[in-house]
Amino acid sequence: MIDLRSDTVTRPTAAMRRAMAEAEVGDDVYGEDPTVLGLEERVAGLFGHEAALFTPTGSMANVLAVRSVVAPGEEVLCEERAHIARAELGAHGAHSGITMRTWHAPDGRVPVARVQDMFAPDLGPYFVPTAAVAVENTHNFAGGAVVPLEQLQALRTWADEVGTSVHVDGARIWNAHVATGVPLTTYGGLADVLAVCLSKGLGAPIGSLMVGSAEAVAEARVRRKRMGGGMRQVGVLAAAGLHALDHHLDRLAEDHEHARMLAEACGVDPAGVETNIVVVPHDDAAGFVARAAEAGVRIGAVGPRTVRLVTHLDVDRAAVEKAAGVLAGL
Amino acid sequence: MIDLRSDTVTRPTAAMRRAMAEAEVGDDVYGEDPTVLGLEERVAGLFGHEAALFTPTGSMANVLAVRSVVAPGEEVLCEERAHIARAELGAHGAHSGITMRTWHAPDGRVPVARVQDMFAPDLGPYFVPTAAVAVENTHNFAGGAVVPLEQLQALRTWADEVGTSVHVDGARIWNAHVATGVPLTTYGGLADVLAVCLSKGLGAPIGSLMVGSAEAVAEARVRRKRMGGGMRQVGVLAAAGLHALDHHLDRLAEDHEHARMLAEACGVDPAGVETNIVVVPHDDAAGFVARAAEAGVRIGAVGPRTVRLVTHLDVDRAAVEKAAGVLAGL
Amino acid sequence: MIDLRSDTVTRPTAAMRRAMAEAEVGDDVYGEDPTVLGLEERVAGLFGHEAALFTPTGSMANVLAVRSVVAPGEEVLCEERAHIARAELGAHGAHSGITMRTWHAPDGRVPVARVQDMFAPDLGPYFVPTAAVAVENTHNFAGGAVVPLEQLQALRTWADEVGTSVHVDGARIWNAHVATGVPLTTYGGLADVLAVCLSKGLGAPIGSLMVGSAEAVAEARVRRKRMGGGMRQVGVLAAAGLHALDHHLDRLAEDHEHARMLAEACGVDPAGVETNIVVVPHDDAAGFVARAAEAGVRIGAVGPRTVRLVTHLDVDRAAVEKAAGVLAGL
Amino acid sequence: MIDLRSDTVTRPTAAMRRAMAEAEVGDDVYGEDPTVLGLEERVAGLFGHEAALFTPTGSMANVLAVRSVVAPGEEVLCEERAHIARAELGAHGAHSGITMRTWHAPDGRVPVARVQDMFAPDLGPYFVPTAAVAVENTHNFAGGAVVPLEQLQALRTWADEVGTSVHVDGARIWNAHVATGVPLTTYGGLADVLAVCLSKGLGAPIGSLMVGSAEAVAEARVRRKRMGGGMRQVGVLAAAGLHALDHHLDRLAEDHEHARMLAEACGVDPAGVETNIVVVPHDDAAGFVARAAEAGVRIGAVGPRTVRLVTHLDVDRAAVEKAAGVLAGL
Repeated sequence: MIDLRSDTVTRPTAAMRRAMAEAEVGDDVYGEDPTVLGLEERVAGLFGHEAALFTPTGSMANVLAVRSVVAPGEEVLCEERAHIARAELGAHGAHSGITMRTWHAPDGRVPVARVQDMFAPDLGPYFVPTAAVAVENTHNFAGGAVVPLEQLQALRTWADEVGTSVHVDGARIWNAHVATGVPLTTYGGLADVLAVCLSKGLGAPIGSLMVGSAEAVAEARVRRKRMGGGMRQVGVLAAAGLHALDHHLDRLAEDHEHARMLAEACGVDPAGVETNIVVVPHDDAAGFVARAAEAGVRIGAVGPRTVRLVTHLDVDRAAVEKAAGVLAGL
Repeated sequence: MIDLRSDTVTRPTAAMRRAMAEAEVGDDVYGEDPTVLGLEERVAGLFGHEAALFTPTGSMANVLAVRSVVAPGEEVLCEERAHIARAELGAHGAHSGITMRTWHAPDGRVPVARVQDMFAPDLGPYFVPTAAVAVENTHNFAGGAVVPLEQLQALRTWADEVGTSVHVDGARIWNAHVATGVPLTTYGGLADVLAVCLSKGLGAPIGSLMVGSAEAVAEARVRRKRMGGGMRQVGVLAAAGLHALDHHLDRLAEDHEHARMLAEACGVDPAGVETNIVVVPHDDAAGFVARAAEAGVRIGAVGPRTVRLVTHLDVDRAAVEKAAGVLAGL
Repeated sequence: MIDLRSDTVTRPTAAMRRAMAEAEVGDDVYGEDPTVLGLEERVAGLFGHEAALFTPTGSMANVLAVRSVVAPGEEVLCEERAHIARAELGAHGAHSGITMRTWHAPDGRVPVARVQDMFAPDLGPYFVPTAAVAVENTHNFAGGAVVPLEQLQALRTWADEVGTSVHVDGARIWNAHVATGVPLTTYGGLADVLAVCLSKGLGAPIGSLMVGSAEAVAEARVRRKRMGGGMRQVGVLAAAGLHALDHHLDRLAEDHEHARMLAEACGVDPAGVETNIVVVPHDDAAGFVARAAEAGVRIGAVGPRTVRLVTHLDVDRAAVEKAAGVLAGL
Repeated sequence: MIDLRSDTVTRPTAAMRRAMAEAEVGDDVYGEDPTVLGLEERVAGLFGHEAALFTPTGSMANVLAVRSVVAPGEEVLCEERAHIARAELGAHGAHSGITMRTWHAPDGRVPVARVQDMFAPDLGPYFVPTAAVAVENTHNFAGGAVVPLEQLQALRTWADEVGTSVHVDGARIWNAHVATGVPLTTYGGLADVLAVCLSKGLGAPIGSLMVGSAEAVAEARVRRKRMGGGMRQVGVLAAAGLHALDHHLDRLAEDHEHARMLAEACGVDPAGVETNIVVVPHDDAAGFVARAAEAGVRIGAVGPRTVRLVTHLDVDRAAVEKAAGVLAGL
């Protein structure tokens, strides 16, 4: 089976497993795991921030990051299909007590004027103030769309003026970086806090990080433990993350090329495919998915008339060509 | 001073005070206050529902009503300036653990196709399902706009098809009813649950009700106590509500006429004023408010370039004419 | 019927109703109700604190008071049958996210050494710190027991040393004051924050107050609105509270005498009855309650072998004598 | 350095690392990781329950387990130094909205009559009902005390009679099992739900499990994702757990013997040391800890006059003997 359902399905490579098996570890609840400390420092540095915090999932990284800039009773603004709104089971309300309001942007980009129009200044103790704006880059449910740099810059400038924070859900910011050449430090410099993920395109089995100021990370470390995310010998996982950063970052360009090949095979304009996700409109999504599965290609329906394909480390050129052939013939 | 800041500022009339002073009361925590039981039964009947529950505020009525149809981790959809999103200090997230997503409708009406497009069916334990759609009628921050009946009907039909609930924030549904002639039972029949308020246009000092099924109200009664809203001899307040329903409902038509008079005085097209709220665009809202106050008219700025006027029971025709004169001259 | 179930069942007197009907009011959400402002200032002064905040219930006053000294994730210590633990439907956990640990004191007093032994200092981000100790005075489920002054003093001295706060649930602190002659300011001076109730022995239909520092009350005012407790023309209720303080405080001594009379009639040593609550052990509590009801006396079973009687404003000497006769004959 | 601070500091052995490196994995969010499924099935079977759920930490396993039997607003009873009360940063209140009440048992055993006395039946919507009793076996802060089987049996019988649930925090139930010979299925049969930990005495780097009915585990799976605990290729961690169960369970007897050796060296009666934890009273705990560290032995102060030593996989006989010599000489 060629599995194109998600880039989360990647399995650790032999070399990554070796790195994990040889990892130096300690008890990270006591702050004594050198490998996870190393990973946290490295990722903080990649984005030009003071600190980072390892989490078992991207959801927990997002929850901790948003909570670090939005208190219970305050609100975060985001796009209506953002991962934090749709795919974290309501954790931001249920666990952080946060309100969301959402804008509508089918292309996954940031309509800055619309966001400015929605923004609620702190009007005293009668209204919910906008504590942060959250941007997802790349935007998963908008087909891996990259948020243009100028939009992030405009958002940053305005956010500083009005005194609100910017959170970046960067689960796939690696893909944005590789697709655009914009340095990670540039992306980092435009955000107050970020969540980034090692277990999607980068291919680590487990692990995400929240990135931010030393103070925000110190507070998040306490909240992580309260959420049940304070693990012990985390070095075995952090080693996979370090290996992924060393070996799997640049190769994301291949995934992007593969995605365009698959788009073409499905009759979708490859020019609209910016990273590793292809959204295919289809009158009978479920039927298409079922027929593809019979032919050895696993894809996912993300709506009654929408199919999604995602390329990743475990699908090489040959597999992509084979899948393209299968899908083109359905 | 003529106070046009809000219809919440009304003071109980002498007759209403008399009704309160003569109210038969009991301990409502034990379900023994005949006056509040009478009010709850009457309001439930007005909307054609099985039961109603008295609450100290409209916010609590909304929180209990929304919670009765949306569980923690689930979501409610509403307009981005809805009272439940903007003016309840984030209670739905902070106390109910609920997620919100919002649509954009400057006119305060319900863009049914847009709502349908946002709707998230229950796709299993990966995504947040849309448990309810909340409609505010009239819509406060959209200038007291009435939601057209056909939109409510379309919403109801579709909600039944897809299996989601409809909450109506009817803090000012009395105004919608008087402005349109649509019976309250018709409005009630289109909602699974409602919140209605006695202390706005109806002029009671305190009191709102959640309206819904007997089961929803029974559960809400427990949650009301947990929120600190289970009061004792509530009859003193319920009597004001009963008096208001007897004497202050039909007269809302006057408030609506007064609002149109004030609109004209402020250069706003009175045809756009549907009920008792007038939104006045002004380049210098704060300055306008300050000058009006000096001239004896209290109004409120609800944005840097937006002023709001609200007519109510304590502002009679003479006061409205005087205020109109003042405002026209500023 | 003579109702001895609780002192919450009192109905406002004619004079109190008159005071309510004549109350000067305003919109308290805007801070403009002179009567509630007057009541808040007066009650703050009675306890020697900076500020007070009116709430619709004692539960909300307790929730706001405890929350003002205990953050989510921190803990409060209290007796295992304390009202905050048993009778507020879990609000401190469900709405404030607070942890409780409890000590065992059947006599309702404060075992100071035991509390000191339970106390958890702040040991860094691995353990739950004790942010406050809560004392209920008088202790409802311990039969209206008064907490001895020397225990409160010892608690205060120690709390200052270790850096924890003291909350007093003073729903019936009026009874403690009248029974012991200890000034309210003395009680107030030993607490960081208090909750006091107007609708129990004092006979107001509705109303409690949180009492504390100006800063704590300002924060609680916001939280009160978030919980749905920010009412409008509250003066109609505050007037009842002011009337109660003027006319119903000293007379609590009668209730205490009445309680001892009823104790004697039920074969309970009146020396053990300190205020207005009598706990009667009985092999068949439910049967006793039922027979009393048939004979015109309403009392309550608070356990399979425990009956509770409470004296109050609506049960005068003649009624007490009659009830004593009935109960003695059962 | 010989590290006796906690059994959480163990590092994976070479053989365990090999098992991890060779683990077959899949995406567990999709339920496709065969190794974690195998571990979950195996652990469920060990305790005679239908299902189990892997979690990143013991805290999360406890939170999910307790939440599965206690709803927000309900209460759990536990010992006052229980891990769920003291060492999970208040998660049961902050994230689950649960109330706790605590009993006092310095020996860590279960005073069944006291628990029965505390128990609150469901008295309708005025009081907090006791939804579960939580027992920690072995009891960490009571020095690794084993809860006697007859107490667990008495608790179970009574719990069934009154209709409450029993949660067992079995982070170190392996130690209880090895120390007493009581089968794990016997322990499992006395609990409605358990949390067990692989990363303490068993020596896995990361991982715990909640154990219970298929229905409880299915619900917990959703809540785990909401808490940010839904990881991807978990097999790399589950393999360590399976290895630990195969190779590190029986050897806990050595840890227990080692603990008694250390107790003797510290002047503590070894007869009181039941498993792998030694609590040493000392007038100057901090000083003792510091001197031990200088001499190459890391131990922990868990109070101003209390030191704790824990034996585990990474401290062999020779190290224990050396540590005993050091500690005896201080």
